Amino acid sequence: MSTARQIVLASRPKGEPTSENFRTETVDLPTPGDGELELKVRYLSLDPYMRGRMSDAKSYAAPVEVDAVMTGETISEVVTSNDPRFKPGDLVLAITGWVDAAVVPGKIARKVTTKGAPETTALGVGGMPGFTAWSGLKFIGKPKAGETVVVAAASGPVGTMVGQLAQQAGARAVGIAGGPEKCAFVRDELGFDAVVDHRDPDFRANLAAACPDGIDVYWENVAGPVWDAVLPLLNLYSRVPVCGLAANYNDGGFGDRDRLPATMGVILSQSVTVRGFIQTEFAADHWGAFLAEVTPRIADGTIAYREDIVEGLDAAPDAFTGMLTGANFGKLLVKVS
Amino acid sequence: MSTARQIVLASRPKGEPTSENFRTETVDLPTPGDGELELKVRYLSLDPYMRGRMSDAKSYAAPVEVDAVMTGETISEVVTSNDPRFKPGDLVLAITGWVDAAVVPGKIARKVTTKGAPETTALGVGGMPGFTAWSGLKFIGKPKAGETVVVAAASGPVGTMVGQLAQQAGARAVGIAGGPEKCAFVRDELGFDAVVDHRDPDFRANLAAACPDGIDVYWENVAGPVWDAVLPLLNLYSRVPVCGLAANYNDGGFGDRDRLPATMGVILSQSVTVRGFIQTEFAADHWGAFLAEVTPRIADGTIAYREDIVEGLDAAPDAFTGMLTGANFGKLLVKVS
Repeated sequence: MSTARQIVLASRPKGEPTSENFRTETVDLPTPGDGELELKVRYLSLDPYMRGRMSDAKSYAAPVEVDAVMTGETISEVVTSNDPRFKPGDLVLAITGWVDAAVVPGKIARKVTTKGAPETTALGVGGMPGFTAWSGLKFIGKPKAGETVVVAAASGPVGTMVGQLAQQAGARAVGIAGGPEKCAFVRDELGFDAVVDHRDPDFRANLAAACPDGIDVYWENVAGPVWDAVLPLLNLYSRVPVCGLAANYNDGGFGDRDRLPATMGVILSQSVTVRGFIQTEFAADHWGAFLAEVTPRIADGTIAYREDIVEGLDAAPDAFTGMLTGANFGKLLVKVS
Repeated sequence: MSTARQIVLASRPKGEPTSENFRTETVDLPTPGDGELELKVRYLSLDPYMRGRMSDAKSYAAPVEVDAVMTGETISEVVTSNDPRFKPGDLVLAITGWVDAAVVPGKIARKVTTKGAPETTALGVGGMPGFTAWSGLKFIGKPKAGETVVVAAASGPVGTMVGQLAQQAGARAVGIAGGPEKCAFVRDELGFDAVVDHRDPDFRANLAAACPDGIDVYWENVAGPVWDAVLPLLNLYSRVPVCGLAANYNDGGFGDRDRLPATMGVILSQSVTVRGFIQTEFAADHWGAFLAEVTPRIADGTIAYREDIVEGLDAAPDAFTGMLTGANFGKLLVKVS
């Protein structure tokens, strides 16, 4: 009988998660039944949404239970298949969680189709994060030629795609990133029109200078002080897809000042649209169109991106907690085997 | 030569406006030139948006300058017409400001068309406030049959229309009003499905009880503590047209707690759409459709409403400042002559 190593949620974090909130276990894998697959995991994707699943606050998705396996999407190799659609050696995407092996129903697996791009992109710009950017821009942000699109966490997989897709629509892409290295990457490798370092003491003034015509689309990934700098720059009829609130995940607020009236005041005075969304809203109807449009452009190098790959399942907890404070540089993946 | 009495902005208010912020003047009226009308004002409409115009904060509309006439829409009788589209005795709508007489270009005047409804409704449910409700629901709130629509300031002209139009769309209308009299009116005269008194110490629990299936559309007129009670009830894919923020107009915040992260958290987790708007966005293209749909229903009594009419231009400042704290009961109008 095969075994699997898995990382479970040992306890719910209060504030920033630490390694204490995770525990590694070894379990026996069941023999795959009818329609099931045995998978050997190659890459685990680590994504900010997982922080939300560690909490039991009301959310769009059920939380991970304490002592249950941390949720997560992986690329795996099929070892055994009792589903006629798959054969051993196939590469598949599945939400197996933080594990190095799993037995899953074949119906939750999808074959990796990267059309020549590296397989890992199926977890990044060509996968869920890329689809998040593509669908949020297509259905909420709707950038038009000549408009200014600002995105924070610009070196991450979602921000990377938001800026490049905005430019494809004829808009100006302004990225926000932390530190000179990430900023150089966003400007020089991704080719954004401008980039602003949120760690710079002059961040507010620099952002305003980078957006001389104001902001038409602000892609909200981070919340916190970045939002306060964006707010006075929002144009009439601007759109704010709310995709993530990284700065809020570990903390309840920002000091002793009520920031809500200022936000609502700008929403009213500038007729702003603020729209929260989760990519699953659009995935069923539009995933195919996304793959058809974007995958060839990843394969031919038109779409640039960066990956940050850590080695071994045991590295996942530290890599994940680091990501929440911006320690990663590019799409964070764990090479499991 | 005729004279006009007019009320000007004497100084910008800090917090709640008082009578000190207004000053009454008597001025000579010019002789109407080519294309101009001399008007004798019958009714002046007092509306919450005027509070915004008293401030010089960045806004969708230029502020009223200090020493300039307070802005406002009136119903007037044409005294002299040098515009062939109008004749003496016609009733017209125009933004003359807080005055008892004016000379204006004919092109800014529109004939009052109420199809048998009282002329005053052209400043209320059949005018700008009614159009605000109609367009905000049609293009942003989009209530569907079986959904729950909550509106604050429910006895005012916008709230009155929001609830009744929501019911017309097959939705449940839940009103929020201040005090037993207004609540009785909303329930018994307007026929809302439920009403909740925001002055009741159990307001939060009562609102939750009135919305057993959550809230699909929250019409934001008021901000403040009402928003905090609404927030946890917002359903997946709910819509929040932001039409007014009365509680914020006179104050910068609510205590020493940052309320923004909770709001953004719900926007994200429930995929909420929050959309500020001013009716002028839709007026050019849709005013005719509004009048055609709504005016006959006001005239035949299908649409209920209430007016609060104060006597004489001098009463305008106190009536206006009272409105900002809910002292009026129904659409606030000044009978000027």
